[in-house]
Amino acid sequence: MLGLDFWYEFASTYSYPAAMRIEALAAGRGVEVRWRPFLLGPLFADQGWRDSPFNLYPVKGRYMWRDMERLCAELGLPLKRPDPFPQNSLLAGRTALALPEAARGAFSQAVYAAEFGEGRAIFDREVISQALAGLGRDAAGVLAQAESTEGKAALKAAVEEARGLGLPGAPCVVTPDGEVFWGNDRLEAAVDWAARG
Amino acid sequence: MLGLDFWYEFASTYSYPAAMRIEALAAGRGVEVRWRPFLLGPLFADQGWRDSPFNLYPVKGRYMWRDMERLCAELGLPLKRPDPFPQNSLLAGRTALALPEAARGAFSQAVYAAEFGEGRAIFDREVISQALAGLGRDAAGVLAQAESTEGKAALKAAVEEARGLGLPGAPCVVTPDGEVFWGNDRLEAAVDWAARG
Repeated sequence: MLGLDFWYEFASTYSYPAAMRIEALAAGRGVEVRWRPFLLGPLFADQGWRDSPFNLYPVKGRYMWRDMERLCAELGLPLKRPDPFPQNSLLAGRTALALPEAARGAFSQAVYAAEFGEGRAIFDREVISQALAGLGRDAAGVLAQAESTEGKAALKAAVEEARGLGLPGAPCVVTPDGEVFWGNDRLEAAVDWAARG
Repeated sequence: MLGLDFWYEFASTYSYPAAMRIEALAAGRGVEVRWRPFLLGPLFADQGWRDSPFNLYPVKGRYMWRDMERLCAELGLPLKRPDPFPQNSLLAGRTALALPEAARGAFSQAVYAAEFGEGRAIFDREVISQALAGLGRDAAGVLAQAESTEGKAALKAAVEEARGLGLPGAPCVVTPDGEVFWGNDRLEAAVDWAARG
């Protein structure tokens, strides 16, 4: 089956609408989505950024939040800024990778809904546990796996792979032939590209 | 008539496809385009950038050029990188503002075609003169106006207005109710917004 890698960061604003849209878009073109959580922090540090560019450059940040309001309104998605922004996404990323691949999409959407739909803190174990429980998962067991040595190594390996791919931000779609599409606004183009095989 | 301000920077890559698309898009929705050239350099300097972010951050730059290749291929637009990038856009900006408003769109498209379609240098008076002559303009007269005290002041005033609007980059569309839409990929949303009046 045709496929694509959807690379996302739980702290990333534009990853929220993208995560909510990608499955339907891809299914409509016969393309399978592989959910690939990673961390932007280490990649941003490579560029000399110690915080989100949206905080470092307030002109960009002000624009982004207004743009998100318009986007979410059009998509019918609630939007509430988490505080602080960006959220620490280490636990969410490790937890997504501790789940079987087939469960990662639904878990990730539940985390985004809590974080950007309700403004909740995703470094809070209770919020992550609720997302897991809502999917019928054994929250304590998954969290133990997420925080094990292998759980931590899995997210580190994903970050290294993202760095190797030269991902400029999140979300990104990477197609099997190596094309990178950055941004919620490139999802349609990315899925079309992947559908051409 | 409904209208929008199209803010663009002659040195900006994504302003090229946007400048080539905006008139047809806007006309299709009954919206009039006001062409507003400005300079990003002074606004980037406010953020601490002394060069294009696409040069300062090579990961972003590599992505942008590949993205431009795909975009231009899809739109049927030729793409050839000018050297150096970014080009000095002072003369092109002043010249656009020295023309009557109704002539700015066609002139700007001619400059973009030379710069990003053929990779020519837009700080070259000969290239600007050819663009003017191609539109039946008296190149020497327009250039004299562009480089007069008033000509220089007009572009400075545009930069100050762009700074006051908080434009995060180029291209941007600003609608009469003050909404800012940044990027070639926001043109459709911007025109739709303007068409709602």
